[in-house]
Amino acid sequence: MIETDALIIGAGPVGLFQAFQLGLLEISSHMVDALPYVGGQCVELYADKPIYDIPGVPVCTGRELIESLQKQVAPFKPTLHLGQLVSSVERQSDGRLRVATSTGTTFLAKTLFIAAGVGAFQARMPNVEGLAAHTDKQVHLGLPEGAQWADRDVLVLGDSDTALQAAISLAEQTAPPKSVSLMHRRNVFVAEPDTIASFNALVAAGRIQFVAGQLTGMEEAAGRLTAALYLDAAGAQQALPVDELLVLLGLSPKLGPVAHWGLDMERRQIKVNTETYGTDQPGIFAVGDINTYPGKKKLILCGFHECVLAAFGASAIVFPDKRVLLQYTTTSTRLHALLGVDSSGPVQKP
Amino acid sequence: MIETDALIIGAGPVGLFQAFQLGLLEISSHMVDALPYVGGQCVELYADKPIYDIPGVPVCTGRELIESLQKQVAPFKPTLHLGQLVSSVERQSDGRLRVATSTGTTFLAKTLFIAAGVGAFQARMPNVEGLAAHTDKQVHLGLPEGAQWADRDVLVLGDSDTALQAAISLAEQTAPPKSVSLMHRRNVFVAEPDTIASFNALVAAGRIQFVAGQLTGMEEAAGRLTAALYLDAAGAQQALPVDELLVLLGLSPKLGPVAHWGLDMERRQIKVNTETYGTDQPGIFAVGDINTYPGKKKLILCGFHECVLAAFGASAIVFPDKRVLLQYTTTSTRLHALLGVDSSGPVQKP
Repeated sequence: MIETDALIIGAGPVGLFQAFQLGLLEISSHMVDALPYVGGQCVELYADKPIYDIPGVPVCTGRELIESLQKQVAPFKPTLHLGQLVSSVERQSDGRLRVATSTGTTFLAKTLFIAAGVGAFQARMPNVEGLAAHTDKQVHLGLPEGAQWADRDVLVLGDSDTALQAAISLAEQTAPPKSVSLMHRRNVFVAEPDTIASFNALVAAGRIQFVAGQLTGMEEAAGRLTAALYLDAAGAQQALPVDELLVLLGLSPKLGPVAHWGLDMERRQIKVNTETYGTDQPGIFAVGDINTYPGKKKLILCGFHECVLAAFGASAIVFPDKRVLLQYTTTSTRLHALLGVDSSGPVQKP
Repeated sequence: MIETDALIIGAGPVGLFQAFQLGLLEISSHMVDALPYVGGQCVELYADKPIYDIPGVPVCTGRELIESLQKQVAPFKPTLHLGQLVSSVERQSDGRLRVATSTGTTFLAKTLFIAAGVGAFQARMPNVEGLAAHTDKQVHLGLPEGAQWADRDVLVLGDSDTALQAAISLAEQTAPPKSVSLMHRRNVFVAEPDTIASFNALVAAGRIQFVAGQLTGMEEAAGRLTAALYLDAAGAQQALPVDELLVLLGLSPKLGPVAHWGLDMERRQIKVNTETYGTDQPGIFAVGDINTYPGKKKLILCGFHECVLAAFGASAIVFPDKRVLLQYTTTSTRLHALLGVDSSGPVQKP
């Protein structure tokens, strides 16, 4: 059980800046994110796309913004817990919050910051019932490391570079699977030209089978998946033997368990006040795209402001007996010490 | 009379970003500032000092921040009216605001944004009555260009580089004044070492007289200033003949006429709602350090957020019949056209 003053759910731009603002108030934090890396939407949806409205930054990409924010928060060393979803939040008798994640990490937190954006990014699943029960057995959301499937029929679902690469790397194994198929509605892919060329060459050589079709169901026998059912291009029902199913349809955000924590919500957004961006539950704050209040605009820069006031809201809980004053990073020697910069000399680029 | 959709008072960081946010909503703006340059406090008080809490900018100086914001707002070409104070704001019968400045510029504005920070920067005056009546006659707030004072006694007040430089340049004229004196409490100056060395050399040569003292009043005769009265280092009252007085005591912010526009205020701050950062007067918004609301923190980054919601508040007035939707600079081709960037290619550094 990890005891912490602050736990931040979501390591996107707003979550990272929340850790920075808490750090300025001498509140250390832990961060949880469903993705295996920080950056959230900025990295997942627009890593290489330009953003023009971060104040004082005429243009940057999503990835560049995240790199800058990581540099900025670095002095405060937030502890990252990545690749896990927060699954439950329970109030303890002492007022603290017991938070558990999908991988079994548990926290006892004085304050909780929900900076989960549009929700946790999770693998998009085909609209077929009963797949979840086979996950990590016959159904895989990524190519398992060291997969040895020489005696098996493998089906890859997806049209992305990742999906094509997975099919290619299986087909090129020394002992490749009995069959490697990739199913997509049509043979048009959202992938690098080189990847598409390699893929097409392997299809031409008969080492990968491209299936133009749409998955409609799976056949099972004795609790095991045996075949994929699909509609082919002509609209006829077909079956394809399958032992291993690779679902590589990309990620989609899911609000997830947050919706069930009893917070006051409005159209899937968490309602907050604009004095501390606190929710209706003491000690739980919501910042960034996941919250709502009169006038709310879902912009990163608005989330940054919300982090400031939420940090002050938290300091009243973490330091109930301390009068916390606003200090300026330009002039405060205390803040300079926390940031690890020298107050006396010229401006330093950390 | 200049007709405009939006008039921004204050060309500091928040005023500049207000123009940017208005630009994204296709509202063009005029800006007024008391200083002869943009940047406000950032340039006046901490041009070369570091700021560490602009989100996504681990460190920058005040001047660098202003340069970045100027670059960011450039596509929207706000019209600048510098070196003038807004002196009056009057509501017209059609609801628009008639705004006049100290230099006679008048505007008819649909919306007004007060981004005046701690107030307009004005020359700090000595605490001596009756000086204002002589301003630009015998009292000068800067060294007048081409000043020819060969027959006059000149007194400079101040301890800054600017004050010392003024004394030096007068003393080094081909036909210098009858006398050049510089008065300060003691001979310690906040100036460049080179300037101090030149100054001391001229004092040693008898070409500048240094007066250790504190101004207490002025003598007048026939409506003209004739002498400065001061307490010398020993506390004795002294008089010094003066024909021209150069007041170079630096700038200090003054809230100024804003206090008299009938806006709802609290401790010299303008009260705003947090939905649009509007004041109690329709069409008048207040953003940045000059406003107050529950939770307010006087940080530049909070002002940036306020600009966003204020711009949307204004769009309801400027475009009463248009439904204005939030668009993203990352994806909106309309915003790309306004920003003058190409939507199709890779990320461009403007």
